[in-house]
Amino acid sequence: MKHSAEQKKRLIGCALGNIEADLIISGVNVFHLTDGSTEKCDIAVIDGKIAGLGCYSRGKTVIDGTDLFAVPGFVDSHVHLESSHLLPGEYEKLVLAHGVTTAICDPHELANVVGEKAFEFFFSAAEKLSMSLIVNLSSCVPATGFETAGAEVDSVTIRKWKELHPESTLAELMNVPGLLFGDEEVLAKAALFDHIDGHCPLISGKELNACAAAGVVNCHESTLYAEAAEKLRRGIQVFIREGSAAKNLDTLLPLITLENSPFISFCTDDISPLEIVTSGHIDSMIRRAIASGANPLAVYRTASWSGAKHAGLNDRGLLAPGRRADIVLLSDLEKCIIKEVIVSGKQASTLPDSTLKAPEEFYNSVKCQKVTADDFTVRSGKTETFVIGVESGSLITEKLMRKLPVKDGKKYADPANDILKAAVIERHGKNGNIGLGFVHGSGIKSGALATTVAHDSHNICVIGTTDEDIAAAVNALIQQQGGLVVVQNGQVTAALPFPVAGLFTDCKTEEFNSRLQKVMTAAAGTGCTLQEPFQQLSFLALPVIPHLKLTDKGVFDADIFQHVPEN
Amino acid sequence: MKHSAEQKKRLIGCALGNIEADLIISGVNVFHLTDGSTEKCDIAVIDGKIAGLGCYSRGKTVIDGTDLFAVPGFVDSHVHLESSHLLPGEYEKLVLAHGVTTAICDPHELANVVGEKAFEFFFSAAEKLSMSLIVNLSSCVPATGFETAGAEVDSVTIRKWKELHPESTLAELMNVPGLLFGDEEVLAKAALFDHIDGHCPLISGKELNACAAAGVVNCHESTLYAEAAEKLRRGIQVFIREGSAAKNLDTLLPLITLENSPFISFCTDDISPLEIVTSGHIDSMIRRAIASGANPLAVYRTASWSGAKHAGLNDRGLLAPGRRADIVLLSDLEKCIIKEVIVSGKQASTLPDSTLKAPEEFYNSVKCQKVTADDFTVRSGKTETFVIGVESGSLITEKLMRKLPVKDGKKYADPANDILKAAVIERHGKNGNIGLGFVHGSGIKSGALATTVAHDSHNICVIGTTDEDIAAAVNALIQQQGGLVVVQNGQVTAALPFPVAGLFTDCKTEEFNSRLQKVMTAAAGTGCTLQEPFQQLSFLALPVIPHLKLTDKGVFDADIFQHVPEN
Repeated sequence: MKHSAEQKKRLIGCALGNIEADLIISGVNVFHLTDGSTEKCDIAVIDGKIAGLGCYSRGKTVIDGTDLFAVPGFVDSHVHLESSHLLPGEYEKLVLAHGVTTAICDPHELANVVGEKAFEFFFSAAEKLSMSLIVNLSSCVPATGFETAGAEVDSVTIRKWKELHPESTLAELMNVPGLLFGDEEVLAKAALFDHIDGHCPLISGKELNACAAAGVVNCHESTLYAEAAEKLRRGIQVFIREGSAAKNLDTLLPLITLENSPFISFCTDDISPLEIVTSGHIDSMIRRAIASGANPLAVYRTASWSGAKHAGLNDRGLLAPGRRADIVLLSDLEKCIIKEVIVSGKQASTLPDSTLKAPEEFYNSVKCQKVTADDFTVRSGKTETFVIGVESGSLITEKLMRKLPVKDGKKYADPANDILKAAVIERHGKNGNIGLGFVHGSGIKSGALATTVAHDSHNICVIGTTDEDIAAAVNALIQQQGGLVVVQNGQVTAALPFPVAGLFTDCKTEEFNSRLQKVMTAAAGTGCTLQEPFQQLSFLALPVIPHLKLTDKGVFDADIFQHVPEN
Repeated sequence: MKHSAEQKKRLIGCALGNIEADLIISGVNVFHLTDGSTEKCDIAVIDGKIAGLGCYSRGKTVIDGTDLFAVPGFVDSHVHLESSHLLPGEYEKLVLAHGVTTAICDPHELANVVGEKAFEFFFSAAEKLSMSLIVNLSSCVPATGFETAGAEVDSVTIRKWKELHPESTLAELMNVPGLLFGDEEVLAKAALFDHIDGHCPLISGKELNACAAAGVVNCHESTLYAEAAEKLRRGIQVFIREGSAAKNLDTLLPLITLENSPFISFCTDDISPLEIVTSGHIDSMIRRAIASGANPLAVYRTASWSGAKHAGLNDRGLLAPGRRADIVLLSDLEKCIIKEVIVSGKQASTLPDSTLKAPEEFYNSVKCQKVTADDFTVRSGKTETFVIGVESGSLITEKLMRKLPVKDGKKYADPANDILKAAVIERHGKNGNIGLGFVHGSGIKSGALATTVAHDSHNICVIGTTDEDIAAAVNALIQQQGGLVVVQNGQVTAALPFPVAGLFTDCKTEEFNSRLQKVMTAAAGTGCTLQEPFQQLSFLALPVIPHLKLTDKGVFDADIFQHVPEN
């Protein structure tokens, strides 16, 4: 980011009007995030940077900014790119159209499958992108010791990458119990960083103090207003998340005030490309926040400057000389209607197609044996069984106890009462574990849904009404080397392969979305009432989110951080 | 600043209430600079850091915080410690009493006398202090090529120190013309830094753009509201300065709003210890700002968080776990009445006396020959003479043309019309230059004032009514090896030696202030009407402040950056 003397000289020359700009946006209404004023002026851009605001006329390209507003490019403060299932080149095109010029990513999904090669892949991709992809170092691979991942990233590995990329933060420290109870590996990782990205769902009081004291400086897991407000008062930056399976904007909207604005940011965490295309990204959060009465200055700060500043990215978040020329041009400021996006001085709409590919070794990652219905037998035991309650739009699950149908000493799903069987099948070729449990709330009446995207270890996660459909779905996934499948009556009714690490498609966004739409339609055909059935299925396996989850080692109580007793 | 695993473990243990705190402030009203709320709670401190806010009872020391408010320690965003004339240990005690726990300093006064040894001295002092002294690397030693300093600090030297202290910024880039005109040395220094501390008095438009484009991220030289407001809109943090000879708070008060608060900070730049004792420091700026109707949250942010965050000091500026335990306890929030200051977890009032000394080599720094009245002869030439107009409370001088008394082909001072002769005498043993000029506005009726504190080259600067008194004052200064003297009728009426580099006393604050008071009284006895005669005298020689100045090479026009033609 540092400019050489020669680069500074060119910037100064362009600022003074002595050197022709690469790009001029003429007569645009600049919305200043410092004082909230709007200034009608030209913006001169050279070498990807803003050189000056004022009267500038000499530019290789001139965009007429009359009747447009200019705001700084948006920052997604926390995202797992893998949840878009698009390779970074496609991801970039998709989000740039929504004004997102900086994404701060935690590559822990891919790292759970391929280990530190995930860091290598994302850092290398970041160099090839026009948008700014900030890669942080995943703290929790695997998320906990209560599951089997494809790889482990230990503190020695983190130290190595921190030395290579000293500006990186420790990404999303999910193992909060490990931190509080003094787990040596967790502390060894934490000690390498001043800035630790947090993950503190429903954590408060002394435990929240302890997280902050250890260096946790932000959290994107607030689902309650009071929870987020407490974090603010403990110096923790609140990332307001609006992802596909976790929608917190409506709840946290009252937080977006002028007072709080430096201390709140927007993020998506996990968002599907279909949702981005249909509902928008941070642009949509801005639009909704302002429509709900939030102060526009507070909202646009939250969308860019606050997140950038918090992440130490001092070269962006303001439209000012010397900053990155990441500029969103809007025809309507309050409705955030995007007309053009400039990224690092280039018009995003004119960027060439990306040729960025995944390495061969990321293919063929589903390494488990084919299964039969018998593999999903749950022996009868106690009268009441732990059942995971899922709810549309929330990653947090309920801990339920239910009496299930029993036949021949086995417990079965009870679709009539919206209780399905669920399984997590280790798929990295490590041990072939199968964890079994039951789920309430999907609405599925018949058939099964399965995915290799199962946070964060990314084993196969499946729910279904019968053991036969469950087995059929799992076998289809193995056959297609990852992705999503829908099965009814033993037959695959829709499928979408994720050949790269079981997480990514290698096709383009349009094709992907069209196929995803078909899978979603097929999923709805099972009776599923969840708005994002696969995203929610993916989070069923994440043991660091309250309250009850399922890993390849069995049903897990995230509140006391241990597996529940056998059925 | 990074904590080891063991330190983090202790912080976590204390936060959880499992380990006894070093200090507890019980039942205090914490004023949160994130959301502006006030929370009544205990603050637990261990190892110099805040561990938690909430209910804590086990502490080695307990301060009863009932009826008190707690706010984060104040940050002086830009200061030359040398202007206090106190060695750092004394300086610390003085400002801590006013709540200042962080001072961000530019050591360029001392560097102009002793070169890079000034960096060594301040970095080493910073390690020994309880307060946080942030030392940046002086960009302009000397300030310009239009004067003779005791040393030069070139880009090679700056690079060396930047490698030793990578967190340092480039301090106060005063040579703006050098930057704009592409001076290679200036650009070479600028290219080493993303963060350049600025100095942009009255600079606006494309020139201001150029400064920002080059990496200038702040400025403490705004003297007009519109000037400061423009800087904000160019992404330049505005440091509102209230120094002894430069008082900008009243003018810039309207800038202190909730909107602007993240982008404004307080600083003193140059402040006399007498003024600190009698009028206060940042505490006084807070008090006056709130009394004038500024929003208290905006004011307290400006006083700590905004400056800290701007400087990349993420470990302070909020009372939150993991942050430095720099805490100001107030009996009145709006009036900023300080009851106790905690610095890095320790009660400032109980700190032992400092034993910090200056190295022997900083003594005996006034190396010029004795002078006679004849050395100050100004030959008569043009009818009108350039006269520097000074005004109480401003560093900016007026460019005047006046007709002076002429006798025997020589021009003389004209005390009846408030025009005195001024001289700057090179005192580093380099060339013995004497620059001569005239000054309007001091009010002096008889006698002379002289100082070795003459920004930034720190030659001897003197003004007087007769050449005889001028010579007597200069010789007295040489005799006492620097400091301040007042002469009337050829006799020294008061003197205060600065034996360390001609800039610092080596006595204690109380003694210094008592002697300074005598010098000030003697200065007033000359008829001088300036509130801070010596501070203003010191700035007479600084050629990077508009409009007309005097160096050892002659009268200097700071607007066109060249010396004026001969008289």
